[in-house]
Order: sequence, then structure tokens, then C-alpha cells
Amino acid sequence: MRPLSETERTELLPALEGWSLMEGRDAIRKQFVFADFGAAFAWMTRVALAAEKANHHPEWFNVYNKVDVTLSTHDAGGLTRRDVELAQKMDLFAGGRTER
Amino acid sequence: MRPLSETERTELLPALEGWSLMEGRDAIRKQFVFADFGAAFAWMTRVALAAEKANHHPEWFNVYNKVDVTLSTHDAGGLTRRDVELAQKMDLFAGGRTER
Repeated sequence: MRPLSETERTELLPALEGWSLMEGRDAIRKQFVFADFGAAFAWMTRVALAAEKANHHPEWFNVYNKVDVTLSTHDAGGLTRRDVELAQKMDLFAGGRTER
Repeated sequence: MRPLSETERTELLPALEGWSLMEGRDAIRKQFVFADFGAAFAWMTRVALAAEKANHHPEWFNVYNKVDVTLSTHDAGGLTRRDVELAQKMDLFAGGRTER
């Protein structure tokens, strides 16, 4: 898995809603906010299954109804298409019930 | 839920295996390490059910096979028996498969 090219970065990253580039690390972040812990963990479970299937896993921090996600591809030393795809799945699974 | 008394702290906290007091905050922390993401998330799922049942939730950060847990009782402004009980459950559910 190779890092995103400059063309891919320009094309793919701005299209991700609510995700921002981290400072000092080639990674993207987003905070998801749910109604409560049960809703947050249900979403995490669905994401976990997709992540395991794709063999590409998030870094995530959960407190009650909030989940802070960081995506990057360790083996590639930065962002790849796998991160973009996982970000899209996370957004899809969260439906309209998230905020930054 | 009231904060732990000094007597309770002396009695209960040292009995928790691998948990340490945080600096600058009345909370306890432990890192759990599993075989892989699937094992880590299976454990998180079991903990999530227990946490929801007890209406007492952890702060936790997961990357692949590692889970960093912080426990404190927000409403009490520090450690309570609920944190000790959740820590014990986490250890129980992890069986012998964890390290600090």
C-alpha cells in the first residue's frame, strides 16, 4: 500500500466531511458524537467489523458518547487509500447522527 | 456516589493488579495488551456491556491490540467504588492474557 500521491490528496481528502489533517503527522482526525454510550459503542462495533475485514484499524479514543478517531497507515508511513476508505465507511455507518 | 475515603484508598487501590494512579488527576490507568485487534475488541465489547449495565463508563484508547484505560467518576470528581469495581471486571474479563 503506497502513500497517497499529491493528486490523490487534493482530490480525496477535501471530499471527506469533517475530517482534518493532523499537525506533525500524516494522518486525519475526526470526532464523532452520538446520543449516548450505547450508540457510540454500537457504531464502534460496526466499524470494528469493517476494519477487521479490511485488515486496517483505527486509533480511537472513546469517552461516553464521543469517539475521537485518527487514521493513518503505519506500514506506509502516512495516509493511503485505505484510510480514505475507512473514513468513508465510518461516516456512512454514523449516518446523520454525528458532529465534528 | 462519594469519593473513596483514605481507608478505602489504602485498602482497595493497591489490591488492583497493574493499575496505577495518574499524576494530576484522581484516576487510575492500565494498559491491556491482547493477541490482536479481534481479541482486544472482543474484550472491549464485554466491558462495554458491563459498563452500560453499571452505568459507569471507561475512558479508553485503542490501537490494534492495545487498550489504554482510564477510570474515574466524573460526578464525584475522582475515584469511587465504581471505578474499583469496573477495574476488577476488566481484569477478570482479560483473564491472564494481559500485560501492563
